Amino acid sequence: MKYIIGIDIGTTATKGILYEKSGKEIAQAEIAYPLIQEKSGQAEEDPRLIFDTVQKIIYQLSQKAAGKIAAISWSSQMHSLIGLGKDGELLTNSITWADNRSSEIVQEAKESKLAQTIYERTGMPPHPMAPVYKLLWLKEEAPDIFAQVKKWISIKEYIILRLTGKILTDTTMAAGSGMMNLETLNWDEKILNYIGINESSLPKITKPHCVVGKVVKEYRDKFDLSDETKIVLGASDGYLSTIGVGVFDENYFALNVGTSGAVRVIAHEAITDQNNRFFCYPIDQTHYLLGGPVNNGGIVFEWARKTIFDPAETATDFLNAAQTVPAGSNGLLFHPYLGGERAPIWDAQARGSFVGLMRIHTKPQMARSVLEGIVFNLLGAAQGLLDQMGKPQALRVTGGFVKSDFVRQMIADIFNLPVIVIKNEQSGTLAAMFLAQKALRDNVDFMQAKEKTSESKVYFPNPQSVAVYQELIPIYREIEHELENSYGKLASFQAKHPQTFEQK
Amino acid sequence: MKYIIGIDIGTTATKGILYEKSGKEIAQAEIAYPLIQEKSGQAEEDPRLIFDTVQKIIYQLSQKAAGKIAAISWSSQMHSLIGLGKDGELLTNSITWADNRSSEIVQEAKESKLAQTIYERTGMPPHPMAPVYKLLWLKEEAPDIFAQVKKWISIKEYIILRLTGKILTDTTMAAGSGMMNLETLNWDEKILNYIGINESSLPKITKPHCVVGKVVKEYRDKFDLSDETKIVLGASDGYLSTIGVGVFDENYFALNVGTSGAVRVIAHEAITDQNNRFFCYPIDQTHYLLGGPVNNGGIVFEWARKTIFDPAETATDFLNAAQTVPAGSNGLLFHPYLGGERAPIWDAQARGSFVGLMRIHTKPQMARSVLEGIVFNLLGAAQGLLDQMGKPQALRVTGGFVKSDFVRQMIADIFNLPVIVIKNEQSGTLAAMFLAQKALRDNVDFMQAKEKTSESKVYFPNPQSVAVYQELIPIYREIEHELENSYGKLASFQAKHPQTFEQK
Repeated sequence: MKYIIGIDIGTTATKGILYEKSGKEIAQAEIAYPLIQEKSGQAEEDPRLIFDTVQKIIYQLSQKAAGKIAAISWSSQMHSLIGLGKDGELLTNSITWADNRSSEIVQEAKESKLAQTIYERTGMPPHPMAPVYKLLWLKEEAPDIFAQVKKWISIKEYIILRLTGKILTDTTMAAGSGMMNLETLNWDEKILNYIGINESSLPKITKPHCVVGKVVKEYRDKFDLSDETKIVLGASDGYLSTIGVGVFDENYFALNVGTSGAVRVIAHEAITDQNNRFFCYPIDQTHYLLGGPVNNGGIVFEWARKTIFDPAETATDFLNAAQTVPAGSNGLLFHPYLGGERAPIWDAQARGSFVGLMRIHTKPQMARSVLEGIVFNLLGAAQGLLDQMGKPQALRVTGGFVKSDFVRQMIADIFNLPVIVIKNEQSGTLAAMFLAQKALRDNVDFMQAKEKTSESKVYFPNPQSVAVYQELIPIYREIEHELENSYGKLASFQAKHPQTFEQK
Repeated sequence: MKYIIGIDIGTTATKGILYEKSGKEIAQAEIAYPLIQEKSGQAEEDPRLIFDTVQKIIYQLSQKAAGKIAAISWSSQMHSLIGLGKDGELLTNSITWADNRSSEIVQEAKESKLAQTIYERTGMPPHPMAPVYKLLWLKEEAPDIFAQVKKWISIKEYIILRLTGKILTDTTMAAGSGMMNLETLNWDEKILNYIGINESSLPKITKPHCVVGKVVKEYRDKFDLSDETKIVLGASDGYLSTIGVGVFDENYFALNVGTSGAVRVIAHEAITDQNNRFFCYPIDQTHYLLGGPVNNGGIVFEWARKTIFDPAETATDFLNAAQTVPAGSNGLLFHPYLGGERAPIWDAQARGSFVGLMRIHTKPQMARSVLEGIVFNLLGAAQGLLDQMGKPQALRVTGGFVKSDFVRQMIADIFNLPVIVIKNEQSGTLAAMFLAQKALRDNVDFMQAKEKTSESKVYFPNPQSVAVYQELIPIYREIEHELENSYGKLASFQAKHPQTFEQK
């Protein structure tokens, strides 16, 4: 029983890694699946398809370990919602974080005091990603299904249920529902009452390193697993990817920018923000994951490469052109809200813009301003955390957007903080494996994780560029506020013509 | 004595056309000259160089008519300022309308009541183009020169002075100084007092078709002209190009869009606007030229072709791509203020923007939104006129920007007015020739001009596109207002780094 499998259930794919118990990586497997987007705003997934994917991954990895798997542990996408009927049958798909159909409910909640109440009691900012808003939406939109559901769970609970027959959730996943009380770390009665559901329709909440149980015979046989293989509860990808890059306290902020992005930090107490700028998700009574998720990361870079440049030009062409322009892009500002935005503005109707155009601005300025805009927005997402917790020693950064020296230096200059690049890109599954180690031995010090995450390179802020950005950032923010109303009006115009204006 | 020469003294070139007295065009000549832009904001010209150019053109055209020139008449760029010393020597270059160095003076005048007073008394909106502001600037910046100048004139007076030895100006040119009173059609004493100059330091004002005199012997000999050749005073290019396209009253608006653009109409009384949106320049006691000049016409189209598309792609490529997108560019708005703007916002610090970007927006949407933005801005420049005078029967349009059916139809749809395309592109010299006809015979009906201007094609508004634009235009205007403050801040940032940020 020498091996551990860490599985990361993502939005577009599931990845599994086979580790030796010591932590050494042996093999990987990854399988993608599609989002279901048939209606405007819909973003669902078929839980059975994801379970099939998980089965294939366990089987593949188990084969490489001759079935000697001590434990399987989980990292999971957050905020998904699945309704089960009285016999455990699926009454809904998995409605993912990307589903926007509760936007109006959120808007109403912002206008009443509800959104503020939810944020203060659960740390969940007002956004359609949150199951609390999805439940309110389903209750209005599909009251029959809403009434029939006996259990509301997320995708991780569904997978574990199929494997073990048990329904359990962990604090980090429960926090992502917007229904777990920040102080009690249990379901918030006031909010459940408001929705009109009982605690019995939600899973029991326990700790991430808890062992749920063994794999039921059917799958044990199917995967050639031993009857000793333990299923560890696991945790949210947001939490695990944070500790997975060596961020355990306020000394470092974790910045991950792939297609989307997030900045995260771990505090020792619950901290909320009067402007709702960041989430506050409990891990346990003395650890809280704070952070801001942003929609517009590498996906915007990709858009700009194809649109401002040309589909035939590479990311390197784009970066090379951007580097010919000084910091500040000759006074051209870009707001990256092509897909609405979560942190820091929490506005699904936000839209992108270039402001400040002069005739001297050509493709290189536009290219650089796109990159700067993406990073200004990430700084915005971090600003609430910086205001409340002070400056960390450095940022620990990962993700596809931060592959170039140029972008890494830009992040250091815009944040005015050292940037430490973390090599290990499988931080979620790695930290899931740590949870399994802890579950098996119960004496793992998470600080060991730091040693597993190799710091490849450090970038220090350049004072001249910092000075330029300090001038531009207030103007960037001001424009964001100035355009607030018009974003909504443009979004309404775009929504009025769904056949031509629908976001793909 | 069968011929008339019409000469148009432009900002970048002077054109001359030789006409038969009947109005038939015989020959053309055109010579370009450079702007002097050695200091930030400077845009001067050497009056001697322009006079040399004029000499060459007269000589070339006169040769083709064997010297049988009955009259030479003038169309001229407006707003230039030249200071002459006590012996008529040049103490300054010709400071053109494009010179921005009195921007701060204008800003101060806007903050005090001065700008409003000047507008109400002279019809001149607050802008550094106006000689009234240039004089205030020179008084501060170069008090010695200011004190030495005995006569302040414009480029047309300078050319005519060299040819005839006489200094005279006409109402349409005097109106462009911001110092001629709207009611008296004479220099405004209150404003002259404020500047600290006397009426004697300005030319006498008379009518455009007045004969100034004959050509002095030196040049008569040089050009082989007869001693009967008359120099007609002529008028401003703004006025002449308006009547030159057949706009004599409020029944039509003239819309000319080349590199920059203007919308103009002739009213029978002085009309001003409480928001200073349009100029009101007297022609005589019963005719007033109202209008708005815009900086950002074809020059912005050209920028977008090279920047959003590629220098290797043609205007046709750009237009073809734009045509694949529906009216409204899928909710993407463009503000064309790449070079600051005169009408309708009168803000030299205004900057360009794209607002409303989503991932579905690619080059074709950006292309169409650039064209729509240019036309939305022209509509803005016309809006004050439409509010005060009501809708005309149609727009009479000319210029390089309106060469394609697609753009012409877009103008009809955005203005919600029929668009009549006028073929004759030499409307300024043509109307200068009419002035000469009038001077020679004094019985020319300007309405004849209409017959000379051939209407090549008419475009009627498409109700579906009109409806889309009616939704978008208020959002476009709103964004313009929202960004007002930030324009100034971005402009200051850009100005702080002149070596890299200077507008070329």
